[in-house]
Amino acid sequence: MSFTPAEQAAMTRALELAATPGVPMVADTRRVGCVLLADDDTTVAEGYHRGPGTPHAEAAALAQAGESARGATAVVTLEPCHHTGRTGPCTEALVAAGVRRVVYAESDANPVAAGGRARLEAAGIEVETGLMATAADALAGVYQLAQREQRPFVTWKFATTLDGRSAAADGTSRWVSSAAARRDTHRLRALCDTMLVGSNTVAVDDPLLTVRDEHDRPVGPERQPLRAVMGERDLDPARRVFNTDAETVHLRTRDPHRALAELFVRDRQHVFLEGGPTLAAAFLRAGLVDEIVTYVAPMLLGAGRSAVGDLGVTTIAEAFRPVVTDVTVLDPSPADGAAGEQPNIRLTLRPARLHQQKEH
Amino acid sequence: MSFTPAEQAAMTRALELAATPGVPMVADTRRVGCVLLADDDTTVAEGYHRGPGTPHAEAAALAQAGESARGATAVVTLEPCHHTGRTGPCTEALVAAGVRRVVYAESDANPVAAGGRARLEAAGIEVETGLMATAADALAGVYQLAQREQRPFVTWKFATTLDGRSAAADGTSRWVSSAAARRDTHRLRALCDTMLVGSNTVAVDDPLLTVRDEHDRPVGPERQPLRAVMGERDLDPARRVFNTDAETVHLRTRDPHRALAELFVRDRQHVFLEGGPTLAAAFLRAGLVDEIVTYVAPMLLGAGRSAVGDLGVTTIAEAFRPVVTDVTVLDPSPADGAAGEQPNIRLTLRPARLHQQKEH
Ligand SMILES: NC(=O)c1ccc[n+]([C@@H]2O[C@H](COP(=O)([O-])OP(=O)(O)OC[C@H]3O[C@@H](n4cnc5c(N)ncnc54)[C@H](OP(=O)(O)O)[C@@H]3O)[C@@H](O)[C@H]2O)c1
Ligand SMILES: NC(=O)c1ccc[n+]([C@@H]2O[C@H](COP(=O)([O-])OP(=O)(O)OC[C@H]3O[C@@H](n4cnc5c(N)ncnc54)[C@H](OP(=O)(O)O)[C@@H]3O)[C@@H](O)[C@H]2O)c1
Repeated sequence: MSFTPAEQAAMTRALELAATPGVPMVADTRRVGCVLLADDDTTVAEGYHRGPGTPHAEAAALAQAGESARGATAVVTLEPCHHTGRTGPCTEALVAAGVRRVVYAESDANPVAAGGRARLEAAGIEVETGLMATAADALAGVYQLAQREQRPFVTWKFATTLDGRSAAADGTSRWVSSAAARRDTHRLRALCDTMLVGSNTVAVDDPLLTVRDEHDRPVGPERQPLRAVMGERDLDPARRVFNTDAETVHLRTRDPHRALAELFVRDRQHVFLEGGPTLAAAFLRAGLVDEIVTYVAPMLLGAGRSAVGDLGVTTIAEAFRPVVTDVTVLDPSPADGAAGEQPNIRLTLRPARLHQQKEH
Repeated sequence: MSFTPAEQAAMTRALELAATPGVPMVADTRRVGCVLLADDDTTVAEGYHRGPGTPHAEAAALAQAGESARGATAVVTLEPCHHTGRTGPCTEALVAAGVRRVVYAESDANPVAAGGRARLEAAGIEVETGLMATAADALAGVYQLAQREQRPFVTWKFATTLDGRSAAADGTSRWVSSAAARRDTHRLRALCDTMLVGSNTVAVDDPLLTVRDEHDRPVGPERQPLRAVMGERDLDPARRVFNTDAETVHLRTRDPHRALAELFVRDRQHVFLEGGPTLAAAFLRAGLVDEIVTYVAPMLLGAGRSAVGDLGVTTIAEAFRPVVTDVTVLDPSPADGAAGEQPNIRLTLRPARLHQQKEH
């Protein structure tokens, strides 16, 4: 493998494009980004996949490039597909456009899409692979788990004080998290296709569960994740979750497996579980949390609501011990800092399967 | 101000020497480090203050250097003293040794020790100040607060799971913190001159409260902090805290102000408050916590003992909001990592005076 610095920079950008927020990825669609580089290392065009039925990343970039694609290097996060699905094969589009070289991060595990590399090489195109494969893997992990387990990937997010509280004794919680942490949460919401909460969170907090922009206005309905409320009780139709900003579904069950199966049938690939503590604990106990994102606010309450519900753990040996994959300090913006806001710490963790799959 | 790279490196080292663990600093003694540099930037000698009655850092370094101190640059964390206390003035020792240049981080606020700079300049020695003054300030903060408030500086340390627990429901807590976090705690204990816990921690946990080395053996009695147990009940003399590894005092009071006054009378400058939650909460409510060090273990218990006791906070606006001064990820050693240990996160915070001093 040998890549130029320009190709490495382009792959970083392609991964960024692939993860563009606000594109719900449903069913078997994937996040893919593509950057076309000219001989002099300048960027000719960029593209990314915007969801089912829209052009693939390569096709989007080629369309933008037009004639300047001739002789270019295509840097793509995924092996170009070689099959005709809702759109034509990317391999043929790349050959037809006269691309000279293709660099991609990782192969397509989907057998029907495979064979891209062989086809490109047969057409005389230089092919290199493996550049930033780990980062691409993380991006692809959601898709791959959903395909393998036949259920959506579940990201559980919770906010907590340094002493494990999600609200004060009187129930007030505005705000435990800093503004920077709340912005970060909106960014992550936008990467999922489903928001999930328990019926008590709807009853108590009356949340909107929409993805909103920097002016706190909901992004367009076509970019909103599905809102799902889980629980057996009847829900008040006047709750804000039933407004017209986005679609909403009431999952009348307490069984996490069943809820995820229902969502998978609705082509959902990535659930963002935002609580409350009771519902999250049920998913944890069932081994159905694939990623944990937690925002720790450097605040002490000493009492109040617990951020995490009962996990059935009685002794230290039974503790849930997820594996830390990232620790990031979210500093306040200058304005927020001036208003006295503190840094919050975001921890990202993945379950240690051993403990996670134990049912209590 | 103008400093050579060698002087900057020497100041970093001098600060490290000043903070050598295991040196109890009592009463009005201070942590000071000194490095002597030759003309060719090599280190001639090093010294640090080892506690009351022992030579000052400069004197220690000069003694080690002997004749090679002539023409050297002395890099010191504190302005050399110009008074005769338990030892002679450092200014005279530096002049007599033929030192050419003195670089120090910050002035001595103690009026009786002041005047060092003027005396050195009068003797024809080049003097520069302000190098790494912020780091030196932090080192000096303990001393300065103790002098100003006429009570010891209080560092409260607590360990917590990601969901705010210090032990599981059955009381088991070995181990919430990782081995790396526990080693780090011993390092910090060794920087204090007093260990303080509530009587219930002694009753329940029977801790040793000693500073121990890497083989878990207590360091010598002369380097052990005083052990203090606070509370009104009678204590069982068979508890390990009363063994001969170190001195122990029973503070028969529940008043944090009174307890600190008693310790100050005993020449204590820096208290390491290790809990439990009840005692720590009392110090927090009284505005008598000057620094918080917390180790967050990426573990979920869902239930169990709270890491922090009742703070009298009922609504979010009353939350304690200390200011974050440092966030450090403590990675496991390779062996600990192989045994499945996870990184722990250490947060260091200082109280926001406004909230801290409010009495509930
Ligand atoms: N810190 C945070 O990040 C965060 C996030 C969200 C909410 N919150 C706070 O959490 C509180 C609400 O949380 P909560 O724990 O009371 O309620 P919740 O988890 O939102 O909802 C609990 C309800 O969900 C239903 N449910 C569905 N599946 C279930 C299962 N497997 N096990 C148990 N119940 C199931 C049950 O209602 P049915 O009777 O309808 O079946 C149950 O009463 C609010 O105060 C909110 O402010 C905090
Ligand atoms: N996570 C951690 O870092 C950590 C650290 C230490 C301990 N722990 C755990 O904490 C538990 C013990 O903590 P705890 O909260 O029960 O006890 P504690 O804080 O160690 O001791 C409480 C006792 O201290 C005395 N006391 C002195 N001053 C007081 C005041 N101002 N207010 C109230 N009491 C005062 C009282 O006893 P008298 O009746 O004698 O006056 C009181 O019962 C143990 O299980 C231990 O494992 C955790």
